[in-house]
Amino acid sequence: MRRDNSRGKYALRVLGFAQSRQPKRMATQSNPLVDDDLVDFLLYSVLDAESLCKLGGYRQHSKQTFDLYIDSVRRFSRQDLLPTYKPMDEEPPVFRDGRIHTHPALPALYKQMIDLGVLTATRPESVGGQQMPMLIHTMASAYLMAANLSAYGYIGLTLGAGHLIEAFGSDEVKERFLARMYEGEWTGTMALTEPQAGSSLGDISTTATPTDDGHYLIKGSKIFISGADHAITVNVVNLTLARIKGAPEGTKGISLFAIPRLREEDGRLVPNDVTVAGMIHKIGWRGIPSLALEFGDEGDCRGWLVGEPNQGLRCMFQMMNEARIMIGVNGFATASAAYHEARLYALDRRQGRTPGRRDGEQVPIVEHADVRRMLLRQKAIVEGSLALLGTVSRYADLAAHGATAEDRERADLLLNLLTPVAKTFPAERGFESNVLSVQIHGGYGYTSEYLPEAYMRDQKLNTIHEGTNGIQSMDLLGRQVMSKGGAPLRALAEEIGHTVARAREAGCDPELCGALEEAVTRVGAITMELGQRGMTGDADGMLGHSWDYLDMFATLVIGWQWLNMAAAARTALISEARKRGTDAAAQYWIRTEIPRISLLASLCRSNEDSYIKAEADWF
Amino acid sequence: MRRDNSRGKYALRVLGFAQSRQPKRMATQSNPLVDDDLVDFLLYSVLDAESLCKLGGYRQHSKQTFDLYIDSVRRFSRQDLLPTYKPMDEEPPVFRDGRIHTHPALPALYKQMIDLGVLTATRPESVGGQQMPMLIHTMASAYLMAANLSAYGYIGLTLGAGHLIEAFGSDEVKERFLARMYEGEWTGTMALTEPQAGSSLGDISTTATPTDDGHYLIKGSKIFISGADHAITVNVVNLTLARIKGAPEGTKGISLFAIPRLREEDGRLVPNDVTVAGMIHKIGWRGIPSLALEFGDEGDCRGWLVGEPNQGLRCMFQMMNEARIMIGVNGFATASAAYHEARLYALDRRQGRTPGRRDGEQVPIVEHADVRRMLLRQKAIVEGSLALLGTVSRYADLAAHGATAEDRERADLLLNLLTPVAKTFPAERGFESNVLSVQIHGGYGYTSEYLPEAYMRDQKLNTIHEGTNGIQSMDLLGRQVMSKGGAPLRALAEEIGHTVARAREAGCDPELCGALEEAVTRVGAITMELGQRGMTGDADGMLGHSWDYLDMFATLVIGWQWLNMAAAARTALISEARKRGTDAAAQYWIRTEIPRISLLASLCRSNEDSYIKAEADWF
Repeated sequence: MRRDNSRGKYALRVLGFAQSRQPKRMATQSNPLVDDDLVDFLLYSVLDAESLCKLGGYRQHSKQTFDLYIDSVRRFSRQDLLPTYKPMDEEPPVFRDGRIHTHPALPALYKQMIDLGVLTATRPESVGGQQMPMLIHTMASAYLMAANLSAYGYIGLTLGAGHLIEAFGSDEVKERFLARMYEGEWTGTMALTEPQAGSSLGDISTTATPTDDGHYLIKGSKIFISGADHAITVNVVNLTLARIKGAPEGTKGISLFAIPRLREEDGRLVPNDVTVAGMIHKIGWRGIPSLALEFGDEGDCRGWLVGEPNQGLRCMFQMMNEARIMIGVNGFATASAAYHEARLYALDRRQGRTPGRRDGEQVPIVEHADVRRMLLRQKAIVEGSLALLGTVSRYADLAAHGATAEDRERADLLLNLLTPVAKTFPAERGFESNVLSVQIHGGYGYTSEYLPEAYMRDQKLNTIHEGTNGIQSMDLLGRQVMSKGGAPLRALAEEIGHTVARAREAGCDPELCGALEEAVTRVGAITMELGQRGMTGDADGMLGHSWDYLDMFATLVIGWQWLNMAAAARTALISEARKRGTDAAAQYWIRTEIPRISLLASLCRSNEDSYIKAEADWF
Repeated sequence: MRRDNSRGKYALRVLGFAQSRQPKRMATQSNPLVDDDLVDFLLYSVLDAESLCKLGGYRQHSKQTFDLYIDSVRRFSRQDLLPTYKPMDEEPPVFRDGRIHTHPALPALYKQMIDLGVLTATRPESVGGQQMPMLIHTMASAYLMAANLSAYGYIGLTLGAGHLIEAFGSDEVKERFLARMYEGEWTGTMALTEPQAGSSLGDISTTATPTDDGHYLIKGSKIFISGADHAITVNVVNLTLARIKGAPEGTKGISLFAIPRLREEDGRLVPNDVTVAGMIHKIGWRGIPSLALEFGDEGDCRGWLVGEPNQGLRCMFQMMNEARIMIGVNGFATASAAYHEARLYALDRRQGRTPGRRDGEQVPIVEHADVRRMLLRQKAIVEGSLALLGTVSRYADLAAHGATAEDRERADLLLNLLTPVAKTFPAERGFESNVLSVQIHGGYGYTSEYLPEAYMRDQKLNTIHEGTNGIQSMDLLGRQVMSKGGAPLRALAEEIGHTVARAREAGCDPELCGALEEAVTRVGAITMELGQRGMTGDADGMLGHSWDYLDMFATLVIGWQWLNMAAAARTALISEARKRGTDAAAQYWIRTEIPRISLLASLCRSNEDSYIKAEADWF
């Protein structure tokens, strides 16, 4: 019997395998993660990032400081983070002897990110931050997440937890936790979910009993807590929802606590009765552990109240927009990294011939129209997502620091309206884009020797966490578009109107401009109709097709982004290839997706009730 | 520091974890894999399986023999196959010392399937088979694949390889291989793909040099060869495409060979110079190895010609319909198993409350309209797929054994027309359905403790292998619908017309009947237009939207299946719940999906050329 010998190894090379199990691509170019010229185009030609520097909050900044920061982050992402992505996917954390053992590359990476200022980029100078616009933070995070979403995850969680303490914590709580978190000594988590409650936060049952020493005694179980234990820093602070004894039932009796894994006593860190009860075997984000936690097994788990009693959900929700936008950035980033894998593969991999030619060398598969269909769809989804995320982040900046109260209010309206789309579209369509990346790789895409399958696994979480996409659709239709007498939707229609005018002026295809204008009208009309149903108490008639409504709304919003990019591209200093690619993607989206709007509006209008009336035993 | 102790284990139980890593569901009911009453309904109320018993080829059969066979297969699938699915997913084959070491449960399972008659169910009695209709085989295979697609995979491959030898092999080749394969002593594979050729079979370069001893000497490399080595049976016969020295270039110079791993010499089995060069790390179908093979490293790999020289692709393509339908069955089965996981989870898992109610116990999530939306979409896709696969399988039976030449010809037309849909729809939409199953499971769906993520991984292969779905779309539009002056599409329109008439008579919703009628007209019209473009040499204009055409065509075909089921359900002896569920799914598909047809037809008509004209550097 023959053994696997050197010839076997040759075949492995042909396959693109390597003994190290490092991912392979046939192309020699490396994955840029995110296109630099796309980011520059969005920042300076589409979203006028420089204008933010005129606002009070960002006056210390300039194009130079923005570029310096983004440059350093993108270099770090490509050189240091990306090479650790696949190893972390393949060697997830281990739960042993009550502790979580994370990947050994993480402590150094975390420190590098702290040194780069990634954690506190958006935080005020008063707490050691750089007070960068969210817009810049979004672009920078996109590189980090595309390179290694788990490694960045520890930063994102710490930022979220720290921001809560910064916004709502008493001086004592800040003193106890904040500086250590922002300086990178301790990390943070968000501990919301409980096994029996899931998305239903009103049903959480973790309890908090007041003591005379300023802290509360906490008792309860949490699940799906990301990063609640690791070997990166010595301590972790869990921002936790719990009920103070005697609090009202439901969502109105929930308070927010900071619960460290180790607490300080007499200048030493001692265990705070926070136990890791189990580690969940996730299918993606495998560099960061998802844990089941027990608080107070031994009756001595101390938590410090953050904000007022019973105001925990309110505090949490005030941070929700930012958190949801960051999920959107993750959706974009994961799809972007996979898009570039597919693009580079399609440029390099030779197979078959174009129609009509039977002889000669095989052609790169990008020559096949069906492959270009998949690539252009990916491009439309990926770049459309980043444009939207940039737009929404800019609204966040204007909502915080706009020049006038009117500016701030308008930006806030648009921010709230668009956040559910910014969370769901990159996740939902991004997953579709990730699947196309696998498909373009053919049989190779079905192997773990190539990266697309890993990105596909990573992406799936984004439709689930921070409020499932179904829940977002109800938020959009049931809450956001209907709020303030329809003011948010009117503001959006005006913004889209500006874009259409700008596009017409710039000489964009009038058909595309007209299609978008018509789409706005349709969306406005169906929204009015649904709102009227809601006002007459017909909740099913209003919300029964909230999923279709979200799909329709997002399709419009992305069409707007593409027309806006196409208009800006006419005069921007960008390469001819980017110009033409932008035109093609705008045309693709507006001609193939925008027509779905009338169909989805009909569906929302139709009272199509098949699943609304369906009973459990019909399935 | 606390350790993970008994309380930790309690938390693990709460999570639905178990130390054995066996998958968990909260529901106590077990997964039926495929609904028995759906299968009965399709066989005896929709597709009139009994009528096949009047045909020459199936005269020995009756409802009793059909039911007996399906019953034994479904029992085996649930009791013996399903419990081995997760272990095989978690312990994939190992490549060591030149050999592949497969899961230890496989030899016994393979023998059980042989004993049940699964391998030769459809083969003629003359070669030891039961000569069952393909329709019955499809239903039986659906259970097997839903239970453990990898374990069944060895049967499927052996059947495909054996069938080729049965159809095209000389008596000597049959004598050498066939009985051993059909009796379960040896397995078979299909060895088509080469690293440099992929889907482009005309570019394969494995060579075959004739000898004076009746065999050829083979030299070359193959990749993605499933099941080419294992520990199930002693030997494997690889049905391999290769070029005889001096053969014409391209697809016309390819011949088919049987190349065993071990060959017989003087009554002993000796190595045949077939080497495993590498094992591909697939993301699904993990019970069956995908291998890189080297033939003739030492110049002594012998292959036996099957069929005439240079007719290899012709032989292969004659088996292609059956192979593609079986991919469709796999797509269905994988989606069906996942649908039932989601259904049982949704019935059992309590979370949140229905709108308007804030108090009281949490409700099973099936009470939430958005969950029912996902379940009904899954049902529409899953059951619609099985109806189509049954319909197409019945055409295969009629094409082979129809009473008159006219019957056979007509069935053959419909079989060829619908096969690309039967291959692609269950794979493409089945994947979407699998994703919904993950989504319904929420955070738990993102873990490997639950099954949906594994089914999602398994499903992805079906859009890639046996001709990617993109290639199928070109086959459908470029070849099938345009063949024989449009006769296949006319035949389909007649069939759909019969269904509409039957539905009207049965008292189905006239709106649904009208919508389907209109859709047929639309599809006919755009097909004519595209055909005319093709005839004037406008290949891009005709085929540029073949993907949208396939989508449109499949949407119509599944609408037809649903109306057909709804019509049959009116008079069938089925439960009230199935009746109402059938109505709801038919309504769902026809009211939410059929309207997409006019949109997709517009797109095919529009000359929308964004990706057609796109150049490589625009991405």
